[in-house]
Amino acid sequence: LETPFLLLQPETMEANIARMNRQMERLGLALRPHVKTAKCAEVVRAMQPEGPLTVSTLAEARACLELGYRDFSYAVGFSASKFASVADLLDRGGQLFLILDHERSASLLIQRAQSSGKSLAILLEIDCDGARAGLQPDDPALIPLAERLSKAGHRVMGVLTHCGGSYLCRGQVELSEAAERERQAVVLAAQRLRSAGFACPVVSAGSTPTALFSQSGEGLSEMRAGVYVFMDLVMAGLGVCALSDIALSVVAEVIGVQADKGWTLVDAGWTALSRDRGTAGQALDQGYGLVCDMEGQAIEDLVVAQVNQEHGILCDRSGRGRILEPGSRVRILPNHACACAASFAGYHVPLGKGDLTYWPRFATR
Amino acid sequence: LETPFLLLQPETMEANIARMNRQMERLGLALRPHVKTAKCAEVVRAMQPEGPLTVSTLAEARACLELGYRDFSYAVGFSASKFASVADLLDRGGQLFLILDHERSASLLIQRAQSSGKSLAILLEIDCDGARAGLQPDDPALIPLAERLSKAGHRVMGVLTHCGGSYLCRGQVELSEAAERERQAVVLAAQRLRSAGFACPVVSAGSTPTALFSQSGEGLSEMRAGVYVFMDLVMAGLGVCALSDIALSVVAEVIGVQADKGWTLVDAGWTALSRDRGTAGQALDQGYGLVCDMEGQAIEDLVVAQVNQEHGILCDRSGRGRILEPGSRVRILPNHACACAASFAGYHVPLGKGDLTYWPRFATR
Repeated sequence: LETPFLLLQPETMEANIARMNRQMERLGLALRPHVKTAKCAEVVRAMQPEGPLTVSTLAEARACLELGYRDFSYAVGFSASKFASVADLLDRGGQLFLILDHERSASLLIQRAQSSGKSLAILLEIDCDGARAGLQPDDPALIPLAERLSKAGHRVMGVLTHCGGSYLCRGQVELSEAAERERQAVVLAAQRLRSAGFACPVVSAGSTPTALFSQSGEGLSEMRAGVYVFMDLVMAGLGVCALSDIALSVVAEVIGVQADKGWTLVDAGWTALSRDRGTAGQALDQGYGLVCDMEGQAIEDLVVAQVNQEHGILCDRSGRGRILEPGSRVRILPNHACACAASFAGYHVPLGKGDLTYWPRFATR
Repeated sequence: LETPFLLLQPETMEANIARMNRQMERLGLALRPHVKTAKCAEVVRAMQPEGPLTVSTLAEARACLELGYRDFSYAVGFSASKFASVADLLDRGGQLFLILDHERSASLLIQRAQSSGKSLAILLEIDCDGARAGLQPDDPALIPLAERLSKAGHRVMGVLTHCGGSYLCRGQVELSEAAERERQAVVLAAQRLRSAGFACPVVSAGSTPTALFSQSGEGLSEMRAGVYVFMDLVMAGLGVCALSDIALSVVAEVIGVQADKGWTLVDAGWTALSRDRGTAGQALDQGYGLVCDMEGQAIEDLVVAQVNQEHGILCDRSGRGRILEPGSRVRILPNHACACAASFAGYHVPLGKGDLTYWPRFATR
């Protein structure tokens, strides 16, 4: 097999899935797995044999509709240019929650829907951590927004939040605290909507760190998470998982050395590892990836220090100047599983006895 | 058209191509354009109607072979796992220069070639700036490496260098100096090989900055460059081009605002803009991209301050807190054209009268 390629360890993935499923059982919550990390039929089926899914693009929803899934949350704020794709998905039997947090987005949605005669199912996006989108749970605009959509014939089904800020936590206590803030924010917004007469059956929270470290699911109807299926160095640095829980690695070949500098050059650059530097702000900066042998054992402190398009420069963080020989192969653990996986058209999956099978990813858009 | 999509201005691209062609004429050098930036039939034909090409993957060479091109330099150090693809390309009528810089890589190549009975054309990679791969021009290992390959029946056709370090220059004087160091390094290596009896017809240098700011092509046989075709914010920050020379932008739609923070949220995240932060070390940090109106005029100091998978957060660098309305569209100039373009399956190209045509990119691997 030509390097670089993306290796997926199925038993590690299965253990990650089982861990999340146990946690959801413990909390008494439904899981709505996020398709955006894997974008792959075999992986999605392992995460959720049947039932609801979260998507980051309508292309993911279309692909999963063809696999037999019906129930999708599109967890990116509504944009008008995608209305035709939304309508198409509904016409083909899909159910879709759209999210939004702004009066002007509601106007655009109402306007677009008018000509199609469709009634849309909507979740209002709530901000729980100041990290991205959403209304504050106590924002006075929340109820008028719901009423506006409802009066125009759309179904305001509930609220959704995402604690992306959990990626900045340090340690498990902070992760549990972030999960609790996420829960409280979205539950408060749901209570306000109920007081205003909306049944609000959907109260959706989640990110991999907060889903795994939540102590309570009270008031929630579901959690969403995606990266848990593969895990990555960012999750390991947060204390969410161990290095051995990372199911994904890039297999690369050594193509040269610069002995004076202590550099080993490999044929995996940013087209394979992405430019994600998610561990840069963590206690242990893993460069563009942590280098392991082909059994998956980290080679002491060897990291990918630099990337160009098709080149990676490996460097020993501790300065011992460890050099690998041209022709040898390594496995590189990625900072960010979503970004690394997005660099490849599919996964090579060992099925025992040295055989590899191939699981393709969905078309991107 | 659904956002985000990649917009390519063909007249800007044509002007960039004409500029590079004029410079090569001035220097009296052949151009061997690099396919890695565009990976697209229409763009490659515009860069080089016929003649030699540089590739960063064998998939690029295969795609261009089908377009009728024959002469390729594969400008990434040889790795053994790709030998079957190399042999296949030669069998289908392609000519290919492979590069390497290490005795062990030569052994692997000789070993792999033996069973196929093929004689390979090889360029020895030279380091001109300490930034990546290559032997020092005066490295004692250079001649023995050439002799080893030659005795095994392969053709050592010359030397190749790449001044990636030019991306760290400040101003046009430094760019010209980098170009001169690049030229001198590879010419010195060529002279040493000639003294040892190798004809060394190929003396190849280049990067977009050094190709455009070279004062002399003496001793070179060709230059290589790729990003010049689209240009980007990194090139503009280096003084290589103006903002108006950037032919590529990502069209995104506003999906929300956080007025308190001065944020505008758009539907272009790292899956559209990449995680490239190439301007982070420049005098003007452009975040993950500079925001323009749909006519391509920069909206004062509005940049993409943060990216998630499908979200971008726009923020006014000057702190004026400029907010755009949901539903409006922007064009975002990318830090790095290669990485941004690699995020999309193809280019949308305005052909006048408001019509857009679509130019697909080659398969990645």
